[in-house]
Amino acid sequence: MIAASDLQKLRELEREHLGLINLDPLQRGGILSPEARKALDMWGDGYSVCDFCTGRLDLIRSPPIFTFVYEVLPKFLEIDIARVTNGAREGKFIVMHSICKPGDTIVIDKNAHYTTYVAAERAGLNLKIVPNSGYPEFRINPEDYAKAIDEVKTETGRVPSLTLLTYPDGNYGNLVDAKKVARISHEQDVPFLLNAAYGIGRMPISCKEIDCDFVVGSGHKSMASSGPVGVFGTKKEFEDIILRKSKYFKTKEVELLGCTARGATVVTLIASFNSVLQRVKEWEGEVQSSRWFSQEMEKLGFTQLGEKPHNHDLMFVESKRLFEISQKHPRRGYFLYDELKKGGIVGIKPGLTKNFKLSTYRLSRPDLEKVVKSFRDILERF
Amino acid sequence: MIAASDLQKLRELEREHLGLINLDPLQRGGILSPEARKALDMWGDGYSVCDFCTGRLDLIRSPPIFTFVYEVLPKFLEIDIARVTNGAREGKFIVMHSICKPGDTIVIDKNAHYTTYVAAERAGLNLKIVPNSGYPEFRINPEDYAKAIDEVKTETGRVPSLTLLTYPDGNYGNLVDAKKVARISHEQDVPFLLNAAYGIGRMPISCKEIDCDFVVGSGHKSMASSGPVGVFGTKKEFEDIILRKSKYFKTKEVELLGCTARGATVVTLIASFNSVLQRVKEWEGEVQSSRWFSQEMEKLGFTQLGEKPHNHDLMFVESKRLFEISQKHPRRGYFLYDELKKGGIVGIKPGLTKNFKLSTYRLSRPDLEKVVKSFRDILERF
Repeated sequence: MIAASDLQKLRELEREHLGLINLDPLQRGGILSPEARKALDMWGDGYSVCDFCTGRLDLIRSPPIFTFVYEVLPKFLEIDIARVTNGAREGKFIVMHSICKPGDTIVIDKNAHYTTYVAAERAGLNLKIVPNSGYPEFRINPEDYAKAIDEVKTETGRVPSLTLLTYPDGNYGNLVDAKKVARISHEQDVPFLLNAAYGIGRMPISCKEIDCDFVVGSGHKSMASSGPVGVFGTKKEFEDIILRKSKYFKTKEVELLGCTARGATVVTLIASFNSVLQRVKEWEGEVQSSRWFSQEMEKLGFTQLGEKPHNHDLMFVESKRLFEISQKHPRRGYFLYDELKKGGIVGIKPGLTKNFKLSTYRLSRPDLEKVVKSFRDILERF
Repeated sequence: MIAASDLQKLRELEREHLGLINLDPLQRGGILSPEARKALDMWGDGYSVCDFCTGRLDLIRSPPIFTFVYEVLPKFLEIDIARVTNGAREGKFIVMHSICKPGDTIVIDKNAHYTTYVAAERAGLNLKIVPNSGYPEFRINPEDYAKAIDEVKTETGRVPSLTLLTYPDGNYGNLVDAKKVARISHEQDVPFLLNAAYGIGRMPISCKEIDCDFVVGSGHKSMASSGPVGVFGTKKEFEDIILRKSKYFKTKEVELLGCTARGATVVTLIASFNSVLQRVKEWEGEVQSSRWFSQEMEKLGFTQLGEKPHNHDLMFVESKRLFEISQKHPRRGYFLYDELKKGGIVGIKPGLTKNFKLSTYRLSRPDLEKVVKSFRDILERF
């Protein structure tokens, strides 16, 4: 018997953070475009995109999924073949599960997202981790991939079955020289996967220039789409492995379980695409904006960790002062969340004060000034 | 360079079938409730549900995902433990990938959905298929599971690692005695997975009564939710295998890649739940409605294949007469789609005339009468 109070609780669906300035890096790149909002309303019902199914999600002509997957996305990513997925993590698992074998070792960066670890674990893979430079910049040195590959060779008698780089990483927003990682990987015949969940849809990324073999991106993180949805790209030479067809159903791609983002999510991805294309062109302004914010925060005594000058909107901030305040505040670490929220600002994980991530992406200068002012006021008030 | 005409095409997002009577079984159970439509608008942005993330999707308190996953869903499914997934197919793969090993054989019904085959193939499994009775009823005899298990034992030297039943199947809408399949499986210590993608959210299903070990359901197919989203349930004894935690990140569940339906999809599932609970109680009326429709269609010379009397809204219709007409019509098989659409009716796959699936789910008697009349008019006109 389901408790009536629990059923009542399911009706409590107001979104507390709606309309506020949300600094959460997870949220900034996923805010829907007006076009996506309209599309979501039109295509919200269940399996709506399958009205004109011709056997597989990516072959559907109305809505224009086919055009998106075959004409637009490969050119946008500058890679041979693209697909839509349920997200970046699902894309990484698709690659690992098809080109690696359980027991294989792969090389990843220390700054990799947790889902890289978990996807590898699910695929039964061992990890060789390229270290970062530690506090305060946490840089990944591309040359260390060569060292890691050599270590795997020594330890297992063969090269790793994959290298992976997080571009940028989700903690510090560092951008490693991906081209160099690709070259080092290819010198040893190791295929290279670029995780650009915080990259694609925010900044210009050319898979051709980087020369990665696979790429994954995130619709909800960085392409103004309703989650969960993502994009995936592969060089043609891996098509027969990764996009292998079912022996039972000739049109179905096994690793994609036939169809992935079979609902409104893919339509929001498509609906936002024109505006995403435009905003990617405005990336340089975003970097300037992020640097300006970083400098203003440092003037207040905060320390921006990660690369400096910073090259991405996602940044990691350290604040010994806020931590000290939290030690004496009755609400402890939660005071920062409370105080920021009073000023209409959210997105810093409730409870955190000493270290936190934030993003300046697509925030106007007046909004960023408001954020800086809020931090200044908090520091002055306590 | 992306062609301007392709970018323009991405703007063509009108949903042609919106507001029409849609007979597609894929679509009928996924039409959003008014509550879900409102929730979709509020939570549409990217990763919106992660505003208050505490480490894992199912632990989020606002929106009330925690209440849904831990208090409501297990009681609704009448099974020990539940989770939200990206859909039924993903749920099946999660089970197969965790409790079976590549090279294992599993037993499935001949009427299984294609994704059962593909999920098994992705997990490296061999299939032993329980046949159906063929034309016209295509029934699965539960006793044949015992035979299939014995065959697997003879052929491989051990019992299959899983049995799976599709309940109901997605072609004929047949409902097999699942309790018997569970008993037969358990007699040989084989765990049993119930695929209820067309069941859960439409009809009353008690995992406890059936005694299945695992169950998967589909939010977009049958729970008035925006796709892709699904539900999954397991008996407690399999928790440590299926929901095993990552060795790298202690809270993350490996098979779920940490989090699954991380977006508006899960909120629509929650928002619709109260109305889904209510409509499940009205299932008997749906069966009556389906039987009435079947009889009316048979009066017109159509044959309803699958179980008779029918026990589900999804049915398979055979029409020699429409096929004959299509042979002489300039639009060939597409004439039926055209003609029905003129009357505001869609959902029968364009091109089909001889055999097609449809569903009467949640269609009012006047709407069903309109559908019958449309078929009658078409038969009379040609």
